[in-house]
Amino acid sequence: MTYCVGIEVDEGLVFAADTRTSASFDDVRVYRKMHVFEWPGERVFVVMSAGNLATTQLAISRLQRDADDPQAARSLRTFKHLYEVAEYIGEVLVASQVKVGDDAQMQGVNVQSTLILGGQIAGERPGLYMIYPLGNCIASSPETPYLQIGESKYGKPILDRILRPQTSLEDAARCALVSLDSTIRSNLSVGMPIDLALLRAGDLKITRKMRLEADTPLYAEIHDTWSRKLEAAMHSLPRFPWEPARETDEPASSLPPRRTPARQDPGDAQGQQ
Amino acid sequence: MTYCVGIEVDEGLVFAADTRTSASFDDVRVYRKMHVFEWPGERVFVVMSAGNLATTQLAISRLQRDADDPQAARSLRTFKHLYEVAEYIGEVLVASQVKVGDDAQMQGVNVQSTLILGGQIAGERPGLYMIYPLGNCIASSPETPYLQIGESKYGKPILDRILRPQTSLEDAARCALVSLDSTIRSNLSVGMPIDLALLRAGDLKITRKMRLEADTPLYAEIHDTWSRKLEAAMHSLPRFPWEPARETDEPASSLPPRRTPARQDPGDAQGQQ
Repeated sequence: MTYCVGIEVDEGLVFAADTRTSASFDDVRVYRKMHVFEWPGERVFVVMSAGNLATTQLAISRLQRDADDPQAARSLRTFKHLYEVAEYIGEVLVASQVKVGDDAQMQGVNVQSTLILGGQIAGERPGLYMIYPLGNCIASSPETPYLQIGESKYGKPILDRILRPQTSLEDAARCALVSLDSTIRSNLSVGMPIDLALLRAGDLKITRKMRLEADTPLYAEIHDTWSRKLEAAMHSLPRFPWEPARETDEPASSLPPRRTPARQDPGDAQGQQ
Repeated sequence: MTYCVGIEVDEGLVFAADTRTSASFDDVRVYRKMHVFEWPGERVFVVMSAGNLATTQLAISRLQRDADDPQAARSLRTFKHLYEVAEYIGEVLVASQVKVGDDAQMQGVNVQSTLILGGQIAGERPGLYMIYPLGNCIASSPETPYLQIGESKYGKPILDRILRPQTSLEDAARCALVSLDSTIRSNLSVGMPIDLALLRAGDLKITRKMRLEADTPLYAEIHDTWSRKLEAAMHSLPRFPWEPARETDEPASSLPPRRTPARQDPGDAQGQQ
């Protein structure tokens, strides 16, 4: 499994991807799922992938090969509109699946992959697309300004509640990190480190790009702070009719810390009633 | 689909369940999935169900029939320990599945159901169990003080981040409502109204019980407040190295409201790039 999310806000695009590839519980590796194609000042694309690793590696290498070939009739450098780029990548994806499927000799292996494409071509505003295994694609929209591939459920509510076109690029990036953090906590096949990229509209190059490990101070701080903030938010929600009024506006700050340094093993008796 | 969550904290138990039953998109009804069996001062049980409706209705009616029969050798009233009650309900569940399966004449209908049982018997502390279609069961634990049935993914991260044994009964109930709210937003087969019940340890009866509609003031206020609180929490997370310092501690309050009264249709051009 995998979890990648792309976000489109007025200020630009945010991309976040985990890096865990697993064939089974005991065959887990780290692979990059975020791929950048950049011609500063002219055009920039980010492609994120979920699905068969052989398929996505083949597709990415073909995209790169064509882009590096000045004679190529069609490549990431030749199209004038992002939508055409999405269609082209869809064709490359379908061809890659066919190639890998032939190589796998139809032995019941799922060779499909799903991609997220985001980027900007000079003269256009940035755009974000999901490219399905059949090669067709859909765009993000102002009502749903994000696209997800892989394990999308755990990290979806926070996106729904926070994101809107006016959200700042950095708040959208923080939201993506929290969405990844929630998913990593719940699905073992989604794992650290996280690749994060920000593309500010008009920059025509990757504005910021970083890889976050679990102990990267920024990520660790976000991870630790979020639960405390949520707890305070929960505690400040409307009270039930039978509850006494809150004593202060921010009583949650007096709650015991969620992470206690060490605690007694509750033991079987308490754990199993 | 369905979404029910049971929570065990030191103060007692919380139960929350949606009420939507769907055979398909165009066959949607409201059915109670939370069932209370109460003998005040002696014992109280709450059973929540996900799965085949015929199976759960049969199982619940058999539990009620046995409990109403003073001659019954085994019923919800006869056992001394909650774990025995869970085993008994598991047996009734398996028998109900067999009966409904025979009636359905094996026509490919899934007759399985999964239950959550919570309650208290005088002399014991409260307990919470998940009862699987095979009749076996597991208890909640201090490390994972909740159990879910049905569409569990969307509403799980908030439970993981908030709940711990020390959480107050009412905060746990608010957390359950937010968890339901997130799930209802993302899965059409989970729907309002919500049944909510609180069982304070030692009360030996349902402490509070309510049905919340979308326009119930308490629920509407929680629904509306939560997004604003989350947004403020998100905005107050650690900043990226390149961002300027925050001007105030609570700048999020100056953000535009998420729900604008009316806005212009963004149109196809913006929506589809």
